[in-house]
Amino acid sequence: MRELVLIGIGTGNPDHLTLQGAEAIRSADLILVPRKGADKADLADLRRDICARVLGGDDARIVEFDLPKRDAGGDYLEGVEAWHDAIACAWVAAAGREVQRVALLVWGDPALYDSSLRIAARLSPPPRITVVPGITALQALCAAHAIPLNEIGAPFLVTTGRRLREEGWPDCADTLVVMLDGGCAFQTLDPEGITIWWGAYLGMDAGVTVSGPLSEAGPRIVETRAAARARHGWIMDIYLLRRASGG
Amino acid sequence: MRELVLIGIGTGNPDHLTLQGAEAIRSADLILVPRKGADKADLADLRRDICARVLGGDDARIVEFDLPKRDAGGDYLEGVEAWHDAIACAWVAAAGREVQRVALLVWGDPALYDSSLRIAARLSPPPRITVVPGITALQALCAAHAIPLNEIGAPFLVTTGRRLREEGWPDCADTLVVMLDGGCAFQTLDPEGITIWWGAYLGMDAGVTVSGPLSEAGPRIVETRAAARARHGWIMDIYLLRRASGG
Repeated sequence: MRELVLIGIGTGNPDHLTLQGAEAIRSADLILVPRKGADKADLADLRRDICARVLGGDDARIVEFDLPKRDAGGDYLEGVEAWHDAIACAWVAAAGREVQRVALLVWGDPALYDSSLRIAARLSPPPRITVVPGITALQALCAAHAIPLNEIGAPFLVTTGRRLREEGWPDCADTLVVMLDGGCAFQTLDPEGITIWWGAYLGMDAGVTVSGPLSEAGPRIVETRAAARARHGWIMDIYLLRRASGG
Repeated sequence: MRELVLIGIGTGNPDHLTLQGAEAIRSADLILVPRKGADKADLADLRRDICARVLGGDDARIVEFDLPKRDAGGDYLEGVEAWHDAIACAWVAAAGREVQRVALLVWGDPALYDSSLRIAARLSPPPRITVVPGITALQALCAAHAIPLNEIGAPFLVTTGRRLREEGWPDCADTLVVMLDGGCAFQTLDPEGITIWWGAYLGMDAGVTVSGPLSEAGPRIVETRAAARARHGWIMDIYLLRRASGG
């Protein structure tokens, strides 16, 4: 492939797509859609829905491929490296040889906790990489709660559940956005003075939000999250924590 | 007004508008467009262009108003409070009494270093607030450079030029995104081991990027920025700094 276009498609609402994203889909020779297994079939369906809407009945350019599975054993970063190698091979195999401009629909934005750019760097010969930004879960969360990300002139840290659990609340910011948290790491914090805004499946029909002082909203989130996860078979959630300034 | 819809319109590329944003413009009874003075006329023009594209010739619903100026003297936060009060009054005066659903086009995303949500909280009686997320300068920056915001599983801090200048590089992250920097605060850092990706007017025709090791790219950015600012009369820029892990 000569050019690889990574298109951010937002977080589940097909209307998150930008005009730029729609045009990039229309002008691609081929659109790669990963299959992630039955539990996340909703996500592949969403990608197909977006393509169908933009392309009308013309789905000849859509090519599905099975996303390789990550080996969860052994060293974490080594496992990720091997997995990215395997995905790069899967892209090339699915795209075939004759294609000029390949598009890949990326959940959220290709820049934020997504591997597509790192996988693309493995392609040889290197194609031209074009990135089309898309609405992220951070933004969908703030929009759903109608809250600002930052306080006036103040910083915020975007981090992971693992970091929050292992390192606690860092000194550098009174606002934290926590992503990739499989286990409600906010439970490891002293809730005094902390407010939480949580959301799951943001932008989708199944979207759900909870907010309030961490002391009372925290347990409600744990419960809501477990029930939703059991019902859907998977969950994608995110939350923002704000503590009283200098707390 | 019964409902106020804050619509993120991205950073200068009219194609950053989402399908959701376009629909929100179409369904508004009235669209408020601030005039910010001649030096930022490009920005008001962009808002009008976006409306014209979405609404076709139907511009009867577009109402311009003069954005009050902030008193730069005295205490900073008090000055901001008074300014926000004045803007809330300007919105109400411009919208008039009979209107149900008012839309406001917000540069970037209403959640990120934008005051619209705080101004909206001053309206009485309180309207229903709806937020439509939009592409931010953060995302436009990463897209322009085709780089990820974060390293694998690692946090990043979004902060301001003022903070970076006053507090230096904080311990909590090896990636910083710096916004609202009027004076190239990266010059206060020891450049050893730091890479910078900078961009101005991102998404616009005037868009310009510079990247590289801070030691050699830093001076080029200072020069490029000064020349661009002199040419346009204003500048909006942003940069991402990454240091070698644990540096």
